[in-house]
Amino acid sequence: MKIVVLGGDGFCGWPASLHLSALGNEVTIVDNFSRRRIDEELGAGSLTPIRSNAERRAAWAEATGRHLDLVELDVATDYERLLDLLVTLRPDAIVHFAEQRSAPYSMKSSRHKRYTVNNNVNATDNVLCAIVESGLDIHLVHLGTMGVYGYGTAGMKIPEGYLDVAVNGEAGEMHREILYPTSPGSIYHMTKVLDQDLFAYYAKNDALRITDLHQGIIWGTSTPETQLDERLVNRFDYDGDYGTVLNRFLVQAAVGYPLTVHGTGGQTRAFIHIQDMTRCIELALANPPERGVRVKIFNQMTETHRVRDLAAMVARLTGAVVENVPDPRNEADENELHVTAEAFLDLGLHPTTLSQGLLGEINQTAAKYRDRVDFAHIPARSLWTKDRQPGIPAAYREDSPGGLPTDPVTAIDAG
Amino acid sequence: MKIVVLGGDGFCGWPASLHLSALGNEVTIVDNFSRRRIDEELGAGSLTPIRSNAERRAAWAEATGRHLDLVELDVATDYERLLDLLVTLRPDAIVHFAEQRSAPYSMKSSRHKRYTVNNNVNATDNVLCAIVESGLDIHLVHLGTMGVYGYGTAGMKIPEGYLDVAVNGEAGEMHREILYPTSPGSIYHMTKVLDQDLFAYYAKNDALRITDLHQGIIWGTSTPETQLDERLVNRFDYDGDYGTVLNRFLVQAAVGYPLTVHGTGGQTRAFIHIQDMTRCIELALANPPERGVRVKIFNQMTETHRVRDLAAMVARLTGAVVENVPDPRNEADENELHVTAEAFLDLGLHPTTLSQGLLGEINQTAAKYRDRVDFAHIPARSLWTKDRQPGIPAAYREDSPGGLPTDPVTAIDAG
Ligand SMILES: NC(=O)c1ccc[n+]([C@@H]2O[C@H](COP(=O)([O-])OP(=O)(O)OC[C@H]3O[C@@H](n4cnc5c(N)ncnc54)[C@H](O)[C@@H]3O)[C@@H](O)[C@H]2O)c1
Ligand SMILES: NC(=O)c1ccc[n+]([C@@H]2O[C@H](COP(=O)([O-])OP(=O)(O)OC[C@H]3O[C@@H](n4cnc5c(N)ncnc54)[C@H](O)[C@@H]3O)[C@@H](O)[C@H]2O)c1
Repeated sequence: MKIVVLGGDGFCGWPASLHLSALGNEVTIVDNFSRRRIDEELGAGSLTPIRSNAERRAAWAEATGRHLDLVELDVATDYERLLDLLVTLRPDAIVHFAEQRSAPYSMKSSRHKRYTVNNNVNATDNVLCAIVESGLDIHLVHLGTMGVYGYGTAGMKIPEGYLDVAVNGEAGEMHREILYPTSPGSIYHMTKVLDQDLFAYYAKNDALRITDLHQGIIWGTSTPETQLDERLVNRFDYDGDYGTVLNRFLVQAAVGYPLTVHGTGGQTRAFIHIQDMTRCIELALANPPERGVRVKIFNQMTETHRVRDLAAMVARLTGAVVENVPDPRNEADENELHVTAEAFLDLGLHPTTLSQGLLGEINQTAAKYRDRVDFAHIPARSLWTKDRQPGIPAAYREDSPGGLPTDPVTAIDAG
Repeated sequence: MKIVVLGGDGFCGWPASLHLSALGNEVTIVDNFSRRRIDEELGAGSLTPIRSNAERRAAWAEATGRHLDLVELDVATDYERLLDLLVTLRPDAIVHFAEQRSAPYSMKSSRHKRYTVNNNVNATDNVLCAIVESGLDIHLVHLGTMGVYGYGTAGMKIPEGYLDVAVNGEAGEMHREILYPTSPGSIYHMTKVLDQDLFAYYAKNDALRITDLHQGIIWGTSTPETQLDERLVNRFDYDGDYGTVLNRFLVQAAVGYPLTVHGTGGQTRAFIHIQDMTRCIELALANPPERGVRVKIFNQMTETHRVRDLAAMVARLTGAVVENVPDPRNEADENELHVTAEAFLDLGLHPTTLSQGLLGEINQTAAKYRDRVDFAHIPARSLWTKDRQPGIPAAYREDSPGGLPTDPVTAIDAG
């Protein structure tokens, strides 16, 4: 297959590009490197020493003899070049990762909110519009989030995208299958709701073939492909904005920082290992919907856990200390989350479980690169509303009586 | 009250601004005059000879002694000035009309689709963001559309925004009130779905007070305020892009052009007279929701009709001929539409009915200005998909054997 990977330089896009290339597909990466520029804006960076995209692609060619193309363009603003690319390349499929994907980043300020909305909505609309204008039958696979469902789903098992409801019709009760009612928890999550509306519309009006993957939180860093050469190393975010919760706990454990549990840690979240993500993309590409049918939605996750249980698990493995800190998010302290996620299992996914993968991840990544950790970037500081507090452990608060700790124990050695 | 009217130079915004000013409110109009530039782009124009906004405001001051302020700015792109305006003026309410509002225009080309999405989403997001950043408790009243519900609502009476549904919970059936599931029929209508998601989010996270008016199709042109002086005349669009269906029939009748019914004309639509729209805005402003509750949604319409019945009504009154032409839209030929719209009646609205108002509208506007009609702009030419046909009557098609009619009968004199 000829596949365009939008956002193919990112945390998910890079290993997905390698995986698709390894399978023998012709892969063209499109990226505007906005994520690398955000590293500069935040003064933060990947725990792992990621290489330039050119060096990454050269290393891939060396290691495998396979070629990856790169087109640097902004999907949200450079419509003409995007359209040109499609018309010239005539891809079979597009995998769309090219969005601003951090919830805390999307809440930092008006500028960050507006950038996230503008970038994500226009990126998605441009892709859809360009597929229609190209006249080509391109299958679009998009990375969405479990967060579109919201976490106020107590008492219900979340289906894969569509919900059967009964309503009072004029001639008695009638049934309808509707998009699951959304309740996003941040501006970022809301943009994925907007995406979902765009997909529903273009699938209906233009009979586009679209798959939307409602993905859980990724954990892990490496895949068999990124491990082929050090220069292929994937990014690993541990900071309060881009770090995903489990990866952050692993780094915190590795450097002896308390595991920062927001609020009671009663939030239940869905997880998937990064390698399973690449495999799900492969399966989604191999199983496109027909033309003229509704958007195909998968729940792309393999386990759910409460945040405090994850922290306890990491603490057990490493000896790290858990600390409950304020929750900077405007969210319920405790929530249930029961998810239907059979479709990928039926297609042959064999998930990597936390219990299998966690220790390896700690040793291979968190412990290996712990010297690169900048403590100042660990806590989550972006507030959902003005009256929230940043998620900083007591000893690290500016008003902490003893001053900031200077020589943290590396709990992982002790553990 | 101090009120900012975004889009206050437009078809709805201008009479609404006058009405709110007449009631003694302090009104500031914000507009970037994009609608006037679109007239130039399309080479089309208002049937009525509308004046510049400066002349309009001067005429209003002369006629009533009341002052209207104008701030020319683009709500979708000029966030800083919008925020400044709010912080300086400290308005009690904002009425938000500032969007690209034509469905056919939104479907003309990729550029038009992209402009509509970009303009409408960013305008709405900027307003919401600016209200949050200002820290002020400003009530936002937005003009949405009945079209968010979609027209696939057979067998159900559409509630005012929220639908009670029963779902299978893990412990048996449970009830939820959800936003009515959407099914927009054009890119334009879809942007109103996106708006709705933005509102739900900001009402939840930031406790903003928001009223969303799901408005039917406006008919009529004049209100008591616009009739005070000829220079206050409202715009009247009759072209295939911006003309609303009934207003187009009135003009077609006035110039002896066939009443162009798309397809079978079995589409059922919701209508409201322009004067009732101004009154609904007044009522919505007087009845804001509390802080911290969900978005208040009204169905702002007073009657529903099938398009072919409207055409028959206009034909009866004027002697005009009805012609079924191809439907350029991708829509069902026939649909039912039953709408709940009690909230405004309960608040004291006394609607103007078609049967009372139609004849006056024909004489005062359509017949009066018929010399200004450009026949080339009458048919709807914007196609929803490539395989659709424009809505041109047989005699006016380019391939018509007799050539284009040169001296149309003015059916209204004959009728
Ligand atoms: N990481 C997770 O845990 C997770 C969970 C659920 C869903 N997702 C989704 O997966 C997708 C990828 O996430 P990620 O973690 O790889 O994020 P990332 O920020 O690491 O990667 C996104 C990539 O897209 C690029 N990009 C952004 N906007 C662009 C634009 N306008 N034009 C061109 N390129 C652009 C960035 O430069 C970056 O390389 C996102 O849509 C995200 O919402 C991620
Ligand atoms: N006319 C109808 O029948 C109808 C029906 C249902 C809903 N509505 C809604 O009512 C609202 C007003 O409709 P209308 O018929 O008055 O349309 P209109 O085009 O006549 O007026 C819209 C006004 O907003 C301005 N505008 C657009 N984008 C702007 C921006 N970014 N910054 C500043 N100003 C901007 C335009 O210049 C114009 O003056 C729209 O939101 C529309 O969707 C109208």
